[in-house]
Amino acid sequence: MVPLKGWRAKGHEIIFEADTRAGKLFDILLIGCILASVITVCLDSVRGYREAYGAFFLGLEWLFTLLFTVEYVLRILCTANPWGYVRSFFGVIDLLAILPSYLSLVFPGTQYLVVFRVFRVLRIFRVLKLVPYVSESTVLWRALIASRRKVTVFLFAVLTMVILLGALIYLIEGEENGFTSIPRSIYWAIVTLTTVGYGDLSPKTNLGQTLAAFAMILGYAIIAVPTGIVTVEMTRAQNSKVTTQVCPNCSREGHDSDAEYCKFCGSSLEFPIEKDGGDIGDARGSA
Amino acid sequence: MVPLKGWRAKGHEIIFEADTRAGKLFDILLIGCILASVITVCLDSVRGYREAYGAFFLGLEWLFTLLFTVEYVLRILCTANPWGYVRSFFGVIDLLAILPSYLSLVFPGTQYLVVFRVFRVLRIFRVLKLVPYVSESTVLWRALIASRRKVTVFLFAVLTMVILLGALIYLIEGEENGFTSIPRSIYWAIVTLTTVGYGDLSPKTNLGQTLAAFAMILGYAIIAVPTGIVTVEMTRAQNSKVTTQVCPNCSREGHDSDAEYCKFCGSSLEFPIEKDGGDIGDARGSA
Amino acid sequence: MVPLKGWRAKGHEIIFEADTRAGKLFDILLIGCILASVITVCLDSVRGYREAYGAFFLGLEWLFTLLFTVEYVLRILCTANPWGYVRSFFGVIDLLAILPSYLSLVFPGTQYLVVFRVFRVLRIFRVLKLVPYVSESTVLWRALIASRRKVTVFLFAVLTMVILLGALIYLIEGEENGFTSIPRSIYWAIVTLTTVGYGDLSPKTNLGQTLAAFAMILGYAIIAVPTGIVTVEMTRAQNSKVTTQVCPNCSREGHDSDAEYCKFCGSSLEFPIEKDGGDIGDARGSA
Amino acid sequence: MVPLKGWRAKGHEIIFEADTRAGKLFDILLIGCILASVITVCLDSVRGYREAYGAFFLGLEWLFTLLFTVEYVLRILCTANPWGYVRSFFGVIDLLAILPSYLSLVFPGTQYLVVFRVFRVLRIFRVLKLVPYVSESTVLWRALIASRRKVTVFLFAVLTMVILLGALIYLIEGEENGFTSIPRSIYWAIVTLTTVGYGDLSPKTNLGQTLAAFAMILGYAIIAVPTGIVTVEMTRAQNSKVTTQVCPNCSREGHDSDAEYCKFCGSSLEFPIEKDGGDIGDARGSA
Repeated sequence: MVPLKGWRAKGHEIIFEADTRAGKLFDILLIGCILASVITVCLDSVRGYREAYGAFFLGLEWLFTLLFTVEYVLRILCTANPWGYVRSFFGVIDLLAILPSYLSLVFPGTQYLVVFRVFRVLRIFRVLKLVPYVSESTVLWRALIASRRKVTVFLFAVLTMVILLGALIYLIEGEENGFTSIPRSIYWAIVTLTTVGYGDLSPKTNLGQTLAAFAMILGYAIIAVPTGIVTVEMTRAQNSKVTTQVCPNCSREGHDSDAEYCKFCGSSLEFPIEKDGGDIGDARGSA
Repeated sequence: MVPLKGWRAKGHEIIFEADTRAGKLFDILLIGCILASVITVCLDSVRGYREAYGAFFLGLEWLFTLLFTVEYVLRILCTANPWGYVRSFFGVIDLLAILPSYLSLVFPGTQYLVVFRVFRVLRIFRVLKLVPYVSESTVLWRALIASRRKVTVFLFAVLTMVILLGALIYLIEGEENGFTSIPRSIYWAIVTLTTVGYGDLSPKTNLGQTLAAFAMILGYAIIAVPTGIVTVEMTRAQNSKVTTQVCPNCSREGHDSDAEYCKFCGSSLEFPIEKDGGDIGDARGSA
Repeated sequence: MVPLKGWRAKGHEIIFEADTRAGKLFDILLIGCILASVITVCLDSVRGYREAYGAFFLGLEWLFTLLFTVEYVLRILCTANPWGYVRSFFGVIDLLAILPSYLSLVFPGTQYLVVFRVFRVLRIFRVLKLVPYVSESTVLWRALIASRRKVTVFLFAVLTMVILLGALIYLIEGEENGFTSIPRSIYWAIVTLTTVGYGDLSPKTNLGQTLAAFAMILGYAIIAVPTGIVTVEMTRAQNSKVTTQVCPNCSREGHDSDAEYCKFCGSSLEFPIEKDGGDIGDARGSA
Repeated sequence: MVPLKGWRAKGHEIIFEADTRAGKLFDILLIGCILASVITVCLDSVRGYREAYGAFFLGLEWLFTLLFTVEYVLRILCTANPWGYVRSFFGVIDLLAILPSYLSLVFPGTQYLVVFRVFRVLRIFRVLKLVPYVSESTVLWRALIASRRKVTVFLFAVLTMVILLGALIYLIEGEENGFTSIPRSIYWAIVTLTTVGYGDLSPKTNLGQTLAAFAMILGYAIIAVPTGIVTVEMTRAQNSKVTTQVCPNCSREGHDSDAEYCKFCGSSLEFPIEKDGGDIGDARGSA
């Protein structure tokens, strides 16, 4: 990849990085615009405000759209790998943030989709560059990633349950009590099992209420499962952050805090002047 | 047991196993049919679709029923132990999947019970044969099994509480506020304690609302119990997956699954023919 | 205390103990009567059944009351320490189980309080005498006892919050939106914070909905606290069940599983031929 | 800072400390007044009581206000560092407790804000001076403080989700189904995601119900996250109360609070002047 030169290098520094004064200012201004844009869309959806300031909101919205379009083009120009940026997570988000406005010219109503811009606020983590927050969100993210398989198995089991509960309540309550179809009854089962309980659909017959009571207690019991999964994975992700000991022989990490010998090559981990205090210092240093 | 020969051996390989190309294809087609069948039943229950495509859905439903009937018969023929299959978990499910259609000829309305077919989708885990998923669901299952006694004790305590709360609210609110009987009041107590809160029944008097507030805070506190139970058991089930390796030198346990050397004495853990794959194989074998 | 003799000793064996054949039979019959009595009360509260079988239910109820009265008198007679029994947990429950029927002669309506009899079913644990269940409920109970102080602090914080939220929503929404007084608004705050959400009271104004949204997210965050408390205590209660190692010198318990020396007197814990396997054997033996 | 003398020293002892007989009595009387004041405000907000005893409640309220005003002035007089008290947590609370009454002379309606007095009840922990409670609330507090960053990241993610869900449901359901604006739709998203589920707003269209079902399952899954966070931090806070002792011989940590000898090398842990009491004292000092 050819390194960027001249104004493109300068632009890259301002737009993509947040270490320099100019780069930080750019990111803060950008986040301000994003938030202002999201708030504009929200206010514009309130009938009273729309009738009073509709034209003003529309102008503001197009101003932000143009700004973000210019920014998007600049981002493509100021990177050595434009295609890589366009396909990246933030590249897609940046495109989604400007598309709805242009689409609304063709399909009226879609302009509210610009609230997807709120995703852009995730850049805030980049600006803050607060190591602790990055580290904490890494722990959370790693725990969620590590538990994805268990959560998949769990969600599959829940899905099977709500389909069965939905079909049963449909047979028991029937259309005269509001359970007009199996899909709608499945919706009721989800509302009940997740303990949301709107009450827009609720069983009227004795048998239906018995089934509902059963479903609630079931939901009460299985809500424990995802919590257990995430807690276990979070404990592990948390702990894995602490074991910063590196084997002096094979340089591999991931040793338990009570390990005295490297579990990969078998040499003593105690060779360096590593004490309990040192361990804590390392953890702090890498946090 | 006499080993199967000829077309029965071939059929067993295709129908019961998923290792060969034909077996995998069969299972994927089967799961496709199951899902299509469940979706057909769901759509058929929507009045609009039923009025428009009722005959088509009926034909489709009978097609699937015939297919599953043929499959059920083949499964019985192609196994060395037919009675064992019939009484197995999947054997019962397979029968339940075809019975409702035939029953609906005698008792109209029962055809919706074919949604029990959704249970057949559990076979999907067989097809995927993804070791991680098998292992993860084993951990979940083991945690639930290990916590069944605590959950029993807990559910018994909850049942005692909801009966008492139901009787009290019945005395306090009475029939004029919708609490027409103790069983219905118990239903309210379950709706409240599990934090579902439909709102179809809600206390109107001051004393009733005080009792409800008490019940809610109680429910809020005891929701912690099943979560605690499952988390503790899941931690243990998770750990028990890890602590199977014993050091051949110092005989101490507690090694990670990626450990190659004992973390206590530094000698190689690989001396026996125990490998990572073997560990997973065990888990699969005992699942 | 003078040991019981003659029929009183025999009666004590039958009524209070569950080890002999007669004792077990007595307890099973008793639990049958209790459940039948509770079901009778529940059915009697349903208008339709009461109108049809009211007299039958009344007779049945008085039959059970007389049986339980005889049993209560026998329990007092057949124990060496009658006063101790009367003041014990089960003594109070047994009295509460028969009082409402007699009270209903004076104060009509109180007969429904006999559902307190359901508490008597707790005796079932005595009959089952299933060691695992006793052990499991001990772990649950110990975890709850150990967490009582944290839960007290937590409930106190929650109470402060709901009073403040209730007062604020009362000021914001006012009587015209159903928040007719601060106590009723506190009831709403509890309904919201515990995520029950009946919907009988819900904010109508923008400011009120903003406050409600804030309260919900608060409730969502603090629901984690009791769960965390109970999980931590349950892990500890669970672990404390495992450390059955007794110091060979000072005979005190409570050592960690990785302890090699007694933490109370400093002598080696390894003196007996206690191995990892032995530890597990002990745990199983005492479970 | 000049030490207090004469009546100011005596006053400080009575008002600020709870170790002497007079100091304890003062605090108990104070808490009684606070609770009576809060109850008065609550009762005064009930229309029936206000119409009957309005004048009496008003008099009572002003009596408490004058008492608390006198107490506030005395607190300022009897401390060596008045400005420090005024800016402290309890100083602000004490001021907030008397301000609303005076403000209500100018702005009618604000008198209900005196319920903020309930915060003053937090002083109860000072009176109890029960070390266990102080210690327990320290553990809870430390766990919340330690998890504040993870909770911030989590709340940020939840906020992004509810804005997106709100915008989507607004587009799908529209104003005719009650979703009159994006802010109101965001309120619905929060009600749904936190599983409160009032039912004042609920989707009517098929697509809306599908989105709602998706949101509920999402909420069901992510409710596990704060629980996991707090459980992990609470486990750590709990353990950190324990792991302060270091063996003077082998320098290893991880001893229980009741340990008297090192569990790794068997030497006495009591060599330094570190006792159990000192541990608790530290906790109190840093609280």
